[in-house]
Amino acid sequence: MSAPSENTAPLVGIVMGSDSDWPTMEAAADALAEFGVPVEVDVVSAHRMPTEMIEYGRGAAARGLRVIIAGAGGAAHLPGMLASVTPLPVIGVPVPLRYLDGMDSLLSIVQMPAGVPVATVSIGGARNAGLLAARILASGAGDEAARLRGRMEEFQAELGRVAHAKGA
Amino acid sequence: MSAPSENTAPLVGIVMGSDSDWPTMEAAADALAEFGVPVEVDVVSAHRMPTEMIEYGRGAAARGLRVIIAGAGGAAHLPGMLASVTPLPVIGVPVPLRYLDGMDSLLSIVQMPAGVPVATVSIGGARNAGLLAARILASGAGDEAARLRGRMEEFQAELGRVAHAKGA
Amino acid sequence: MSAPSENTAPLVGIVMGSDSDWPTMEAAADALAEFGVPVEVDVVSAHRMPTEMIEYGRGAAARGLRVIIAGAGGAAHLPGMLASVTPLPVIGVPVPLRYLDGMDSLLSIVQMPAGVPVATVSIGGARNAGLLAARILASGAGDEAARLRGRMEEFQAELGRVAHAKGA
Amino acid sequence: MSAPSENTAPLVGIVMGSDSDWPTMEAAADALAEFGVPVEVDVVSAHRMPTEMIEYGRGAAARGLRVIIAGAGGAAHLPGMLASVTPLPVIGVPVPLRYLDGMDSLLSIVQMPAGVPVATVSIGGARNAGLLAARILASGAGDEAARLRGRMEEFQAELGRVAHAKGA
Amino acid sequence: MSAPSENTAPLVGIVMGSDSDWPTMEAAADALAEFGVPVEVDVVSAHRMPTEMIEYGRGAAARGLRVIIAGAGGAAHLPGMLASVTPLPVIGVPVPLRYLDGMDSLLSIVQMPAGVPVATVSIGGARNAGLLAARILASGAGDEAARLRGRMEEFQAELGRVAHAKGA
Amino acid sequence: MSAPSENTAPLVGIVMGSDSDWPTMEAAADALAEFGVPVEVDVVSAHRMPTEMIEYGRGAAARGLRVIIAGAGGAAHLPGMLASVTPLPVIGVPVPLRYLDGMDSLLSIVQMPAGVPVATVSIGGARNAGLLAARILASGAGDEAARLRGRMEEFQAELGRVAHAKGA
Amino acid sequence: MSAPSENTAPLVGIVMGSDSDWPTMEAAADALAEFGVPVEVDVVSAHRMPTEMIEYGRGAAARGLRVIIAGAGGAAHLPGMLASVTPLPVIGVPVPLRYLDGMDSLLSIVQMPAGVPVATVSIGGARNAGLLAARILASGAGDEAARLRGRMEEFQAELGRVAHAKGA
Amino acid sequence: MSAPSENTAPLVGIVMGSDSDWPTMEAAADALAEFGVPVEVDVVSAHRMPTEMIEYGRGAAARGLRVIIAGAGGAAHLPGMLASVTPLPVIGVPVPLRYLDGMDSLLSIVQMPAGVPVATVSIGGARNAGLLAARILASGAGDEAARLRGRMEEFQAELGRVAHAKGA
Repeated sequence: MSAPSENTAPLVGIVMGSDSDWPTMEAAADALAEFGVPVEVDVVSAHRMPTEMIEYGRGAAARGLRVIIAGAGGAAHLPGMLASVTPLPVIGVPVPLRYLDGMDSLLSIVQMPAGVPVATVSIGGARNAGLLAARILASGAGDEAARLRGRMEEFQAELGRVAHAKGA
Repeated sequence: MSAPSENTAPLVGIVMGSDSDWPTMEAAADALAEFGVPVEVDVVSAHRMPTEMIEYGRGAAARGLRVIIAGAGGAAHLPGMLASVTPLPVIGVPVPLRYLDGMDSLLSIVQMPAGVPVATVSIGGARNAGLLAARILASGAGDEAARLRGRMEEFQAELGRVAHAKGA
Repeated sequence: MSAPSENTAPLVGIVMGSDSDWPTMEAAADALAEFGVPVEVDVVSAHRMPTEMIEYGRGAAARGLRVIIAGAGGAAHLPGMLASVTPLPVIGVPVPLRYLDGMDSLLSIVQMPAGVPVATVSIGGARNAGLLAARILASGAGDEAARLRGRMEEFQAELGRVAHAKGA
Repeated sequence: MSAPSENTAPLVGIVMGSDSDWPTMEAAADALAEFGVPVEVDVVSAHRMPTEMIEYGRGAAARGLRVIIAGAGGAAHLPGMLASVTPLPVIGVPVPLRYLDGMDSLLSIVQMPAGVPVATVSIGGARNAGLLAARILASGAGDEAARLRGRMEEFQAELGRVAHAKGA
Repeated sequence: MSAPSENTAPLVGIVMGSDSDWPTMEAAADALAEFGVPVEVDVVSAHRMPTEMIEYGRGAAARGLRVIIAGAGGAAHLPGMLASVTPLPVIGVPVPLRYLDGMDSLLSIVQMPAGVPVATVSIGGARNAGLLAARILASGAGDEAARLRGRMEEFQAELGRVAHAKGA
Repeated sequence: MSAPSENTAPLVGIVMGSDSDWPTMEAAADALAEFGVPVEVDVVSAHRMPTEMIEYGRGAAARGLRVIIAGAGGAAHLPGMLASVTPLPVIGVPVPLRYLDGMDSLLSIVQMPAGVPVATVSIGGARNAGLLAARILASGAGDEAARLRGRMEEFQAELGRVAHAKGA
Repeated sequence: MSAPSENTAPLVGIVMGSDSDWPTMEAAADALAEFGVPVEVDVVSAHRMPTEMIEYGRGAAARGLRVIIAGAGGAAHLPGMLASVTPLPVIGVPVPLRYLDGMDSLLSIVQMPAGVPVATVSIGGARNAGLLAARILASGAGDEAARLRGRMEEFQAELGRVAHAKGA
Repeated sequence: MSAPSENTAPLVGIVMGSDSDWPTMEAAADALAEFGVPVEVDVVSAHRMPTEMIEYGRGAAARGLRVIIAGAGGAAHLPGMLASVTPLPVIGVPVPLRYLDGMDSLLSIVQMPAGVPVATVSIGGARNAGLLAARILASGAGDEAARLRGRMEEFQAELGRVAHAKGA
């Protein structure tokens, strides 16, 4: 899997349990590309490569990542496990599988025990995961955050203009 | 409702649709107090005071808030409506009501349309909402973020020590 | 989106969160056209154009609308938010999206808190939303209501005749 | 069961399948009493007295009723059956029974086929049923409707004041 | 809709709320034809022709029917309403509609209040409805019941033989 | 467990998977006692005494039983397994256990494969199971059936009178 | 149905309620073939051939089987009934049928009463059933178990390598 | 937490995410004590002590464990994560938490991806987890397995006797 935009040091890590999750997760990378946020994309399976998964989470902050987006389906353990080994905010995307319409994925991601939060978005909601990461990056101090705040306000105004045009 | 800790300018706004949500939402304020993050707490009903709710959201960033935590139950519209009028990250807490064990609250909060993300935590998971806000604040640039990162690492180490002690 | 029948001042406003809801919501307009009730149709997104949405609701009664029909899917906030800013009866249509068969839409619309009712119809039930609006208009005082009562009785008799013919 | 307020000809009929539904349904009568709307209250079981139920529905409009509120639980057939024999708007209240938290009641009421709408409110939401009836009565022509519109606007303003006071 | 087998007085009435239910319900008629049980088939909508529905139920026993099979979908009121006006056993078939996979139909049929039972079969399980009617007819006194008991035993043996052959 | 009424040869066998089901299942015996139908009551566990369970089912018709009522909870296999070894009509009662409100019991009983029907009643609906058995016995030929038909008509009239009195 | 690999005495019996379950269940046989574990495959319907089913379960251990894998859908009684007549570990595979996405199958298999366990895998998860059987065989004493332990470790390493390669 | 029976080298490891799971999980230890199987009991949280959790799983087989029983609630990741780092069979017990009756726990445990099976038992079904472990140990080669097979047969006979006695 090639990383969509890595010209500078990535700020957001987008990971998923299987490359079959990419058609769903791609929208997170696209959203962040619209905001000019460099990302890295990887397959990091909680169940098939647990050691690498733990290492990925543990090293994420030191590598310069500031947000992790993790998509997984079914007994979706990746977002929660990453959240347990990083101090970074972790955004979970419930990927719908063949049965149950993603309800299993949603509950497996959102129902985390006290102490280890996962910021869960809607079933299949990878675009919103990207936008949430942008909001998080925009909420901090510094120039890049200020740039992103401006960009987010433009984005929200544009959302309204497009919706308004449809209703005109 | 008195604000638990407002000695300095609040960084996190904790709002809820009704004061009956406070027993659930209090844990968010408590968690942020443990991290020394100043918060403001308010009742802002999407359905009973929509104008104030919109104003609250619109003014939040300018007032210095950097994260909003919103709890609501049933047809829980507060987190999503706030997310639509602020560029800040909004964390939604599904508050369980008398029937359905919070499943209606969860779906009403998490299933947001593309464009307007809400970072949803577990049913009744206000403590995790507070911790997620702390992670978000800790992920940015600047001294306060650095302080919070250190505090978060202590917190996570302590979580492990306590759990380990129980299993000893 | 063009309004299907606006030869006289509209009595019913049909709104939806996205033009992708129109294939579902069209049946509401068709039903009201059968009853000769003038309608207006618009896209008014709670999440992407909240200010216009609030304005739409606040001005609806003064503009002469007597019923609002609002369709939305997922975290469907439009019907409830409109109900919070208008004294008019608001009918909510749960629009089914790609996952969960509209169960999220239904719960997000129907589980409103005490004080702000939404008259909810079935998942995808826009035709019934139109018919319910007609019943509401027919239940009042005045000539138009009397005309609609007569029309509704014809309609119900016809329903029975068609069903009876199928069983003959 | 005594009718709470019948000093003038009732405009709203409140019916339920069993007197065990009264503790839930009473809130509909209370809400309408706050609005000065005369109501009649009756037990009319779809399953145990189907003939009287059909007669009740058929005669409702001629008796002067303008809205029917029907509460029922489990396989809740009363609202839908009444809607099939009256041109009046029928509001359905899903009454939660011992198991399933009212989900069976909700689906049995809301999932009506095209042609016969029921205006469904939340599980146990009888107060909102009363308020919805008031909105319907207020939306029509004539003096009583105008009075109710004024009263509804007061009510909504008061809702906001109370909520605001809690957040102060 | 033509009745599949009416050469003698029908013992089982197969009814459904809409002719769109026939592709599901046909299997009930087929099963009874295999057992040589004469049936009548009709569309009898609880919601669109309530008077005929009540008449159908009330007259069923006197007309010689001994079992009623009723299929319906969504807010499926037909089986329960028929059960309320006949002393005959009523078998309900939950017909799955476009959304919710028949779960609404199942709950609307099976969750009947004490006093009015409906013998519910699986979602879409019309063949089993026919077989259950045959078991009921076979359980009584008289020659026809004896013939059916023999036929049922053959049928069950055949079920086993076919299943066994597949596993051989 | 003592059999409630066995002065003559029992016509209905009431069985359950565990004696902890008796508080639920007792209502079936009570209903049949009201109709003067002799019953036998037994604990016959599909999972803990499968051989006896199969024997019970196989011998039921020859012993003179004409209907079997089987209650079970959770992975509720008793009704379906009995239905597979008897030609008699089998009525299944989903017994709610500690979790899931009987939804598991309901699905485990009602979703039988084609060929082996179980007449399922509501969750915890043992009284209706008894009444359904009475309807089945009443639908046949012979004097006892005629007596039961008369009794059932009285019962239904009484149901209406009681409900009517509550509404008076 | 032909048995995929029976060159030596089978250690695992794979059974299913209907040959229509084979497309789902085949993956269990394939997984065990990868591990060189001889299996037998058969259709053994709990509902259509209960006597053979009981015999199959009772004789399984004596025939040399050490694990049983049973797949079934809907009111899925086969795994639980087999578990009640064998001391062997029984693995249940919920087979999804046309409606409900296998949720009925899952609950009917997993919610077994205390005393009779079924080792349940995911909806449609036959491959995991095969792998679980391999783990069980590998956990014991003796040469074959040792061989399987080695093979399982290779398998797990390979899982990681394949997942890792996708993420490279 | 003290280990209930550790006089010899434990064969089964019973772990749980929190000591609040012990009232549920204790029944697994009790069942194995009845079979004379030595166990170890520990709190090993996937989320609060992930490194120890991984180490626990990785070392389990080498330490002599032959089965792992893991209980967890909500987003229950412990059983699946352990299964990813051990070749041993892992039995998962869905622990019901305050909301959702354990449905989230069940789906988080049972819906594992292909490659990493978890043998899931019923919600709160820790006793069956113990009995399943005993079956697994009994299915292998060697003297201890033979002893356990005999004990399991006694246990099953006793189950039947007790059930039979209740029905006598």
